[in-house]
Amino acid sequence: MFPDQLSSLIKAKSSFLCVGLDTDVRRIPEHLHSAPDPIFAFNKAIIDATLPFAVAYKPNLAFYEAAGPKGWESLKKTLDYLPKDVFTIADAKRGDIGNTAKMYAKTFFETYSFDSVTVSPYMGKDAVTPFLEQEGKWAFVLGLTSNAGAADFQYHCDGKEMLYERVLRMGQTWDNEYPGDVGFVVGATKTNKMAEIRTQAPNSFFLVPGIGAQGGDLHAVCQHGVNSGGGLLINSSRGIIYASQGANFAHAAGEAAAALQQEMAPYT
Amino acid sequence: MFPDQLSSLIKAKSSFLCVGLDTDVRRIPEHLHSAPDPIFAFNKAIIDATLPFAVAYKPNLAFYEAAGPKGWESLKKTLDYLPKDVFTIADAKRGDIGNTAKMYAKTFFETYSFDSVTVSPYMGKDAVTPFLEQEGKWAFVLGLTSNAGAADFQYHCDGKEMLYERVLRMGQTWDNEYPGDVGFVVGATKTNKMAEIRTQAPNSFFLVPGIGAQGGDLHAVCQHGVNSGGGLLINSSRGIIYASQGANFAHAAGEAAAALQQEMAPYT
Repeated sequence: MFPDQLSSLIKAKSSFLCVGLDTDVRRIPEHLHSAPDPIFAFNKAIIDATLPFAVAYKPNLAFYEAAGPKGWESLKKTLDYLPKDVFTIADAKRGDIGNTAKMYAKTFFETYSFDSVTVSPYMGKDAVTPFLEQEGKWAFVLGLTSNAGAADFQYHCDGKEMLYERVLRMGQTWDNEYPGDVGFVVGATKTNKMAEIRTQAPNSFFLVPGIGAQGGDLHAVCQHGVNSGGGLLINSSRGIIYASQGANFAHAAGEAAAALQQEMAPYT
Repeated sequence: MFPDQLSSLIKAKSSFLCVGLDTDVRRIPEHLHSAPDPIFAFNKAIIDATLPFAVAYKPNLAFYEAAGPKGWESLKKTLDYLPKDVFTIADAKRGDIGNTAKMYAKTFFETYSFDSVTVSPYMGKDAVTPFLEQEGKWAFVLGLTSNAGAADFQYHCDGKEMLYERVLRMGQTWDNEYPGDVGFVVGATKTNKMAEIRTQAPNSFFLVPGIGAQGGDLHAVCQHGVNSGGGLLINSSRGIIYASQGANFAHAAGEAAAALQQEMAPYT
């Protein structure tokens, strides 16, 4: 998917919502455990219930890996089930030397048909560009993350710029080489920085985790993060998919997604 | 495995050799393609041939993921086949917030029984410690990597220390909390830095990729990197496993491993 298509989708649905499919087999409702593929059955019901309100879906790879080989089958079925007109993100945070990064890109973009992958910048440009080589396939590069440990290294400052600012700056030069293929992960818990980060990367899409369980402020994110193309994908995982752990889980997920979409709508 | 056990193994085999199992189904010999599990058949033959000369094995997760769900089955069989007295490394370069990192740790340490995982430090301490919580299970934290892009961020300097030096310093404080559980990835292509890095992290194990295809100097790595407990795991992947792509691939892999071991032996 290209950035202008994602911008249109945001306008059409009046939503920045990305639903995080952090599907933990230990937390899905009892009655689904007898399904042939409980993880997929859960994801399918969540997708059906949230699709009117969401523009993107983000499976967290850790949860599928943890289920063993069958977890990857559940992931494949989930990707195949998602309509082609929503945006998809493999939350994998990969980052490795060129020939290895190529293999990861091949997996996520070809075997699983994701639109994008989250990527760690620690190893530099040659660890990221293999994810940028196909038009319409993106990397979301970790910028300033939502967790407490973000401060350990991301604020490391050379007097002119902090590490995360250097990542934003260099990431945009990569985007110049591969137009429209680089976005950034910017945590919702860093709302005091959101306005500044938007001025540092005015045209980029930000994937914003950290509202809900991690405590980020949705309105501040929208207010300070939006740009003319929308520019935001705001993720909620646990707050939506585990809104209820009973038989009504899908209905509750739909309601939680609708409530977030309504809060976002005025900013889209 | 605990560090003193790994040190004993290095002494016993007079070897720092880690065999990188970057097994690409497109590069394995023709006659193995009819095996029920070609990737496992290849790995088994490589392990049998190299075991006298190697102290560690490092599957590169990208290659198993790329093979789809059955790639994870090949990985499981490979781990189950490896003797318990060699050290194992999941080269996965994971790094994510706490609850996700816990899932990754569970996968690699419990489902697949690895001794260690490579971890990216970008997200900070809380992305690393879930890999340190089990005694005898390690994280190799990316320090100074072997690729060209390493210079993009790892040399970012606050006037006192570069980013990779900060990672080395903070990583050792984590190791104080979880003794013996933190090692570092230090690329063999950075031999001009190896002696200095050894003084900065005198007691840590270094996982050293980059000899062979990437051009690192084995003797310089041994000379400047060794410490009293050995302190080195020097990886070779393509130079061993693709030493020959003919029917004699395992024999050629054994010879390549033996040649490296003989070069390492004087330093062990």
